[in-house]
Amino acid sequence: MDNQYYAGIDLGGTSIKMGICSPDGQIICEREQATPQGHYENVLEAFQQMLHQLLAEAELSPKDLAGVGVGVPALLDVEQGNVYEIVNLGWKNVPLKAELEKRLGLPSYVDNDANTAALGEMWQGAGKCSRHLICITVGTGIGGGLIINGDIYHGALGLAGEIGHMTIRPEGGLLCNCGKPGCLETETSATAIAYYGRKAVDEQQETRLTQTLKQQGVITAKDVIDAARSGDVVSVKILHHVGYYLGLALAQMSNVLNPEKIVIGGGVSKAGDFFLEPIRENFIKYALNKVSETTDIVPATLGNKAGWLGAAWLVHRNSRPGQNGGK
Amino acid sequence: MDNQYYAGIDLGGTSIKMGICSPDGQIICEREQATPQGHYENVLEAFQQMLHQLLAEAELSPKDLAGVGVGVPALLDVEQGNVYEIVNLGWKNVPLKAELEKRLGLPSYVDNDANTAALGEMWQGAGKCSRHLICITVGTGIGGGLIINGDIYHGALGLAGEIGHMTIRPEGGLLCNCGKPGCLETETSATAIAYYGRKAVDEQQETRLTQTLKQQGVITAKDVIDAARSGDVVSVKILHHVGYYLGLALAQMSNVLNPEKIVIGGGVSKAGDFFLEPIRENFIKYALNKVSETTDIVPATLGNKAGWLGAAWLVHRNSRPGQNGGK
Repeated sequence: MDNQYYAGIDLGGTSIKMGICSPDGQIICEREQATPQGHYENVLEAFQQMLHQLLAEAELSPKDLAGVGVGVPALLDVEQGNVYEIVNLGWKNVPLKAELEKRLGLPSYVDNDANTAALGEMWQGAGKCSRHLICITVGTGIGGGLIINGDIYHGALGLAGEIGHMTIRPEGGLLCNCGKPGCLETETSATAIAYYGRKAVDEQQETRLTQTLKQQGVITAKDVIDAARSGDVVSVKILHHVGYYLGLALAQMSNVLNPEKIVIGGGVSKAGDFFLEPIRENFIKYALNKVSETTDIVPATLGNKAGWLGAAWLVHRNSRPGQNGGK
Repeated sequence: MDNQYYAGIDLGGTSIKMGICSPDGQIICEREQATPQGHYENVLEAFQQMLHQLLAEAELSPKDLAGVGVGVPALLDVEQGNVYEIVNLGWKNVPLKAELEKRLGLPSYVDNDANTAALGEMWQGAGKCSRHLICITVGTGIGGGLIINGDIYHGALGLAGEIGHMTIRPEGGLLCNCGKPGCLETETSATAIAYYGRKAVDEQQETRLTQTLKQQGVITAKDVIDAARSGDVVSVKILHHVGYYLGLALAQMSNVLNPEKIVIGGGVSKAGDFFLEPIRENFIKYALNKVSETTDIVPATLGNKAGWLGAAWLVHRNSRPGQNGGK
């Protein structure tokens, strides 16, 4: 049978992840390589080569593919598949969908990478079988994707899911890159955790992070989590600060959105329940009882496969009978 | 042509509002009467009588109606049209949709009244032509409805839109009926405005509300707004308090949801720009620039017609070709 497989691509500033999966989301094969710099044609060239390699590995031909989906780290016009800008790669106004369809001869679909990661978790990860999810990625920044009625929600202008810029600490919060104070991102991202660790050392608080800084010259979020795990009081306090603001923000969102689950991904979430427990505690404290009793907070399970699998789901969505783009 | 008109009902604790409209939402006629107490059959009986009166007034027959929609002040199973509970009316587990269809012989649709009010404003009011709205009603409490992709959003369990219970003032906020402190409702509803007015008098602050209390024995939200309008500094401060928390909450929601418009209804919103300006100021302060620049905050325009018109829209949704309930 033709057209039964999907290709998915996760375009990052440093690497491209691509894979092929079956219509039920089973991974057939996947690859990763460095993102070419320079003109965007170089990236398209890399996409084409990687796809050929994957097809060969899977013993498939292009006509076995129903299409290709791409997640990009950018704001874009999802309908037209036009990317406004990818700062890290120097892209501006790239008609990615049209270029891909011309080059690959396959139906192509494009969305933001936070959205494709959320779709991946919905399809094959921690949100499997759910139709209503809040997905949040705690990494260098805070990213988000809203799954509403079984599809990603874009909002009026494609800006929906900017969870990282909820003002959660209007008084006394740190100034964010967005120009506003006290964003969720400035208080709870990996960057924030590392910042508060370094601040404690600079203030000469009694913490084993002082030793870490001496040895490494730098303090990471992982250092703070490791120190907290081994009982460092200052580090435990930092994670409670993070749990308070993340729990409060997720409670606020959940009272408004009533999701089935909240999926937390990103580097920091690998710390598991040790990181999630303070979030859950504050979530229960601030969400309506009916909401907190029925909303699980769970770690993402797909890691860095979420992006390309979610991108492949864009093909799935457009291949199902009676669907025309999930709008 | 048969089946071309819609009936809509807004069931309240004190009155029933009902009307008939054309497929493009033009009001043909409408009525209002007191809500019968006692068994729920009494209310169904009143529905039936009012509908007969309206049909006679419009010179229509039942076969001219495509169906009837009802907004109820309750949590319910929207699919089945079963109402879990209406405390004020003593209803428990009423299969309203089935009962209506049996009694009226017309397709019937039921939703929560905050949701039907939001749908009314989307269809014929301040949100006309918009597909993405946050609707908020500032009255005795704070109600909300989310319009997502041109339809009401229910969330996983029908709880979506509980805007009034967003914890907006976790430290120092008043205790809400829901059991949590600092809900948006406890800080910004008409009840809250009146409370803060009374508190100022009790604390012997210099305010003309002291005189109002002496004369009336009570202070209402309207008194505080009127006093603020005439320059009473204490009352202006109260409205700034309300504007701060409402503006902040709407900014938080809009960063996540990216609506086209925010529609503010309810008694207090009748004060117009005088009430809305402090909200807008704080919204601009806390929303992402891209969001605040593209999101208008506007007063609701339908008043108490919003509920029944939105209920009539439930018929509209289910009468359009290719639609099966907007799910």
